[in-house]
Amino acid sequence: MASVICDMSMSLDGYVTGPNDSRENPFGDGAGMLHDWLFNDPTDDDRAVLREALDRCGAIVMGRRSFDKNEGDGGWGDGGPLGDTPVFVVTHHAPTRRYPAVFTFVTDGVRSAIEQAKATAGDKVVGLHGATMMQQGLPLGLVDEISVHIVPVLIGGGTRLFETLPEGIALERVSAIATPAATHLRFRVRR
Amino acid sequence: MASVICDMSMSLDGYVTGPNDSRENPFGDGAGMLHDWLFNDPTDDDRAVLREALDRCGAIVMGRRSFDKNEGDGGWGDGGPLGDTPVFVVTHHAPTRRYPAVFTFVTDGVRSAIEQAKATAGDKVVGLHGATMMQQGLPLGLVDEISVHIVPVLIGGGTRLFETLPEGIALERVSAIATPAATHLRFRVRR
Repeated sequence: MASVICDMSMSLDGYVTGPNDSRENPFGDGAGMLHDWLFNDPTDDDRAVLREALDRCGAIVMGRRSFDKNEGDGGWGDGGPLGDTPVFVVTHHAPTRRYPAVFTFVTDGVRSAIEQAKATAGDKVVGLHGATMMQQGLPLGLVDEISVHIVPVLIGGGTRLFETLPEGIALERVSAIATPAATHLRFRVRR
Repeated sequence: MASVICDMSMSLDGYVTGPNDSRENPFGDGAGMLHDWLFNDPTDDDRAVLREALDRCGAIVMGRRSFDKNEGDGGWGDGGPLGDTPVFVVTHHAPTRRYPAVFTFVTDGVRSAIEQAKATAGDKVVGLHGATMMQQGLPLGLVDEISVHIVPVLIGGGTRLFETLPEGIALERVSAIATPAATHLRFRVRR
């Protein structure tokens, strides 16, 4: 069965977006640097990390807020964030307008979205996107791996990747790749 | 002039102690693993990281809470945490009982404590210990380097190393050493 991997860029102080994020300001104030390793002069190591993450991803689960910030008027063109890779959007209410066929709107929670994503991911993995999705999925035991790209900046506010958990969770670091723009760390969740 | 370095072990979710820390439970609930790289079967790399941190430390600044948790009835014996290395304890009120001579109680704030520590550190560095001290010193521009030992665990609550800052701060990662028990990262604060 497909593994579920949460893969996020995070400032050293734990933020995945800065304050005041919106569709017009998707990274939030002062957080553009979080994505320098992707967009702004990546090294060969940065590119290899990204390539591996994209190649292994067979389905995506994201929250409605991530979807709304990036989609709307064609943010991803005719497909999804990874072309025709299926995307399951967890939402309280399915939208009434039509979106490209890669998107499935799931109104019965993150567990259901992850199950549907696993069923389509084949021998690839499910990418769980967004702090809210991870904070919901992790305590339910639905996350197998956490991949964080720690960026050398203190943003000082915004949305944290990790908020209060009901109990501690042990991890095992399975890889570490350091580049000037990020420290790429992969952790397996221990059960 | 001596550099000021904050050197702390931190869980991946950003905590330096777990919930309910006290003198009897100095690490807090579920946070003992934060110090495995020091105490519980360290690798040669872990030992080298620790040795370098100890060797370069010429003076320590800590808050009253760290002091109280560890000292009291001889927690550090006749000296301080690093033997005869001077320790400046930031406190609102100097204690009335006597403590070993390595301790100086500073009642006029972290800036004063750091200045006094720099004056005694010679060609070594000042170690700034504790989340509160760092959160006070960093916005004042008094911290030159942040050394974090990221431990593969999610504690889920307790004291965070990084809380809200008045504004973003750019860093430069100057070293990265990965061991099973910790990812040792050093960052220079950019001004």
